[in-house]
Amino acid sequence: MSFTADRLLLFGATGDLSQRMLLPSLAALHADHLIGDDLQIIGTARSDLDDAGFRNFAREALEKFMPAERRSDMAGFLNRLSYQPLDATTLEGYKELADKACCSEHGTAIFLSTAPSLFEPTIAGLRHAGLAGENVRIGLEKPLGTSLETSCEINDAVAAAFSEDRTYRIDHYLGKETVQNLMALRFANILFEPIWNSNYIEHVQITVAETVGLEGRVAFYDDAGALRDMVQNHMLQLLALVCMEPPTDFDATAIRDEKVKVLRALRKVDAGETVTGQYRAGAIDGKSVPGYDEELGPKDGGDSDTETFVAIKAHVENWRWKGVPFYLRTGKRLPERVTEIVVQFRCIPHSIFSSKGATTQPNRLVIGIQPDENVTLNVMAKVPGLGRDGIRLRQVPLNIAMPDAFSGKTRRIAYERLLLDLIEGDQTLFVRRDEVEAQWEWIDAIRATWSESDLKPKTYSAGTWGPSAAIALAERDGVSWHDE
Amino acid sequence: MSFTADRLLLFGATGDLSQRMLLPSLAALHADHLIGDDLQIIGTARSDLDDAGFRNFAREALEKFMPAERRSDMAGFLNRLSYQPLDATTLEGYKELADKACCSEHGTAIFLSTAPSLFEPTIAGLRHAGLAGENVRIGLEKPLGTSLETSCEINDAVAAAFSEDRTYRIDHYLGKETVQNLMALRFANILFEPIWNSNYIEHVQITVAETVGLEGRVAFYDDAGALRDMVQNHMLQLLALVCMEPPTDFDATAIRDEKVKVLRALRKVDAGETVTGQYRAGAIDGKSVPGYDEELGPKDGGDSDTETFVAIKAHVENWRWKGVPFYLRTGKRLPERVTEIVVQFRCIPHSIFSSKGATTQPNRLVIGIQPDENVTLNVMAKVPGLGRDGIRLRQVPLNIAMPDAFSGKTRRIAYERLLLDLIEGDQTLFVRRDEVEAQWEWIDAIRATWSESDLKPKTYSAGTWGPSAAIALAERDGVSWHDE
Repeated sequence: MSFTADRLLLFGATGDLSQRMLLPSLAALHADHLIGDDLQIIGTARSDLDDAGFRNFAREALEKFMPAERRSDMAGFLNRLSYQPLDATTLEGYKELADKACCSEHGTAIFLSTAPSLFEPTIAGLRHAGLAGENVRIGLEKPLGTSLETSCEINDAVAAAFSEDRTYRIDHYLGKETVQNLMALRFANILFEPIWNSNYIEHVQITVAETVGLEGRVAFYDDAGALRDMVQNHMLQLLALVCMEPPTDFDATAIRDEKVKVLRALRKVDAGETVTGQYRAGAIDGKSVPGYDEELGPKDGGDSDTETFVAIKAHVENWRWKGVPFYLRTGKRLPERVTEIVVQFRCIPHSIFSSKGATTQPNRLVIGIQPDENVTLNVMAKVPGLGRDGIRLRQVPLNIAMPDAFSGKTRRIAYERLLLDLIEGDQTLFVRRDEVEAQWEWIDAIRATWSESDLKPKTYSAGTWGPSAAIALAERDGVSWHDE
Repeated sequence: MSFTADRLLLFGATGDLSQRMLLPSLAALHADHLIGDDLQIIGTARSDLDDAGFRNFAREALEKFMPAERRSDMAGFLNRLSYQPLDATTLEGYKELADKACCSEHGTAIFLSTAPSLFEPTIAGLRHAGLAGENVRIGLEKPLGTSLETSCEINDAVAAAFSEDRTYRIDHYLGKETVQNLMALRFANILFEPIWNSNYIEHVQITVAETVGLEGRVAFYDDAGALRDMVQNHMLQLLALVCMEPPTDFDATAIRDEKVKVLRALRKVDAGETVTGQYRAGAIDGKSVPGYDEELGPKDGGDSDTETFVAIKAHVENWRWKGVPFYLRTGKRLPERVTEIVVQFRCIPHSIFSSKGATTQPNRLVIGIQPDENVTLNVMAKVPGLGRDGIRLRQVPLNIAMPDAFSGKTRRIAYERLLLDLIEGDQTLFVRRDEVEAQWEWIDAIRATWSESDLKPKTYSAGTWGPSAAIALAERDGVSWHDE
């Protein structure tokens, strides 16, 4: 379905994601002449706005969330916008929306950024209004279900109107520069692939740490928890990209074929291989913050058992990764905001320098995803100079994705890449149904072990790296979490 | 023979090497408190100087050849110096020299930087004066012979007075930082060793390029030529360090055991695998310079056939290096002064990015030895940003031995390392007899093919990279010399 859409329908156009990410991303694509002049953007939501009102809303969003230096020709961008109010739960109103989107010569792209409960009625409305044909594709924001079963329901409902090749499941981590750079490093260099396996890699760590707490997402988050909010999607996608075999091409089919193989090779996790936690009051950056229970407020049926932190020791059971632990952890109210992948290589088998009193640290590749996007390879080098104390070695950090190597390049947010790919019809960085289902299958099994063992989250103080059991999970194997 | 010498005898103390390198190196070691307070330095040469005269000579050398910021406590250094005139060719005078070196409590180190013709009489004189005992070690500067046969003669003469473990054959390239860093990179990181073989390395280039011409070394050079002046020693030592198997320890025996194995594994070179050249008048840096024949002046027996340039395609016949060509070239009056090793990795076997219009360059490790000491690893990374033209990749040079990683470190000259090791008795960075002989064996065979085929050097213009046949030698294999 290779067409470049000339209509973009934004569902949830007045929502938080739209304000912070989608409208600024589209405005940036406009400013950089990356979208065609004929692309019209139609916002829709429950709010009763007209075109002028939505443009006003958009202008305010851009002023607030877009760096001033990137705002150029904002008037031209706002002129692309129109708006149609809609109650997504009834079929009424979809025809008017379809009329707004009519006159599309090339095709329509839809972006659904709404509450999950609206997915099915919205699909029904789109079909009713004829907005589900071959020249329409749909982008879906998470969460797509809360289990394999509910995910299948949503995917079935979508599939009834949109074939898989017109369905774009968004995982915005895939739009990040360093995540794509990981593929470039692995497959555009001959250096890494020969050592990218259990012979040379000791373990891998993936951390998604937030400093924020609930941020008003009370009801949603308490039903979801860290495992389903972060691990099921983002972290498993990162793991799949680290682990996948070389695909045959940089295209949607080849890359997703390789990712799904990894996701299906995930070993079922034992209860002892996970640690859950829930934060209590503490301090972050010297500022005191309340505990989860206080943020949540009174709850029917007593205290919440939702995990705000989870650490997992995972394994990928195939030839390449046999025996290599993957330590995953994510949580709220941790000491710093950081998303990173640490690939820890093994120690050299034998040091010829130890008789000279020199120590070596094993090589390490750190792929920083948030807040800074960077890739650092640590190598050992000789410290220049001489002395009576033998040879001296030191770890030198090599900055592979260093800003100065690509100076003058604007840092883009992930949604720019993904919205452009949605408009142009490139599924490479979107998640395929079989991947989502393999992810849920593994996650559901973890949740099942938790229920079986009646696991309750351990408490941790806000501003710490989770319950001490999470430290122990790694330290038992002689591994320390990468906290710098 | 592990003693730290408290007497250092410098033969050739008023010569060029002494002025430019040895005295400044010793003064730097003094300034940095790296040599013991009890170390006395006794210079000797034919010149009729007294202690004060030699100190004066040394002071002038330091002012001329030592950076001002490194000169500290020069008075203290000069106080270590004394001098004994000597005609090395007769036994007379050695006793007086021995008297100057007497009162050594710990032992004596001798450094011979004299004409090769003086080696044998000097050894005889040292024996005569009792300066060849167990507590005396000797350092020998090149050239050590002009063939395997003459090299054996010199080594036999030395061996009659000094056992191998007290004989320190200097190859000053081994004292260079990046040459030692090559060992650190290879053996302190797990990254490189798995790809350090014919499966992943396409070829290796070693270049020693000079811009200078004869520089007054007329007689010596015309008898030697580029092959014996540069390839036999420096370049084969670099090749041995690139190729050697991991030694069991960073010590003299283990490292030299591995180097000699490489040197013995060098395949005999065919006539078609070498190119020789001799420069004619040309221009370097816009300045016209005379040809070799003009610099040499009138010569008995007609024109000189001495090569001032040589390029060789070499092979190391063992499991690791089978099929990997090593392109060596060295010459005078080339466009720039540069000594470097280029390790060129193979192309990736399959590019997943070519369908996106992105090209990849193979990885490359460049070890710069002169004039700059640096190590650069080229890797491919994604160019940040998006666009309709697919993914873009770019080569990023990673500076491993980058100055800012080790800022504040003084750049040392190679002789500082080597003189300190001679004084302290560490043979690791000195060349063992079996290495020298393996080197000569290979070099003699090359010279034999030249005589058999009556090869005459091709001419090249000063300021070019040698005869065009040298370019062709590599290009025939699809390889371009690394000229930047």
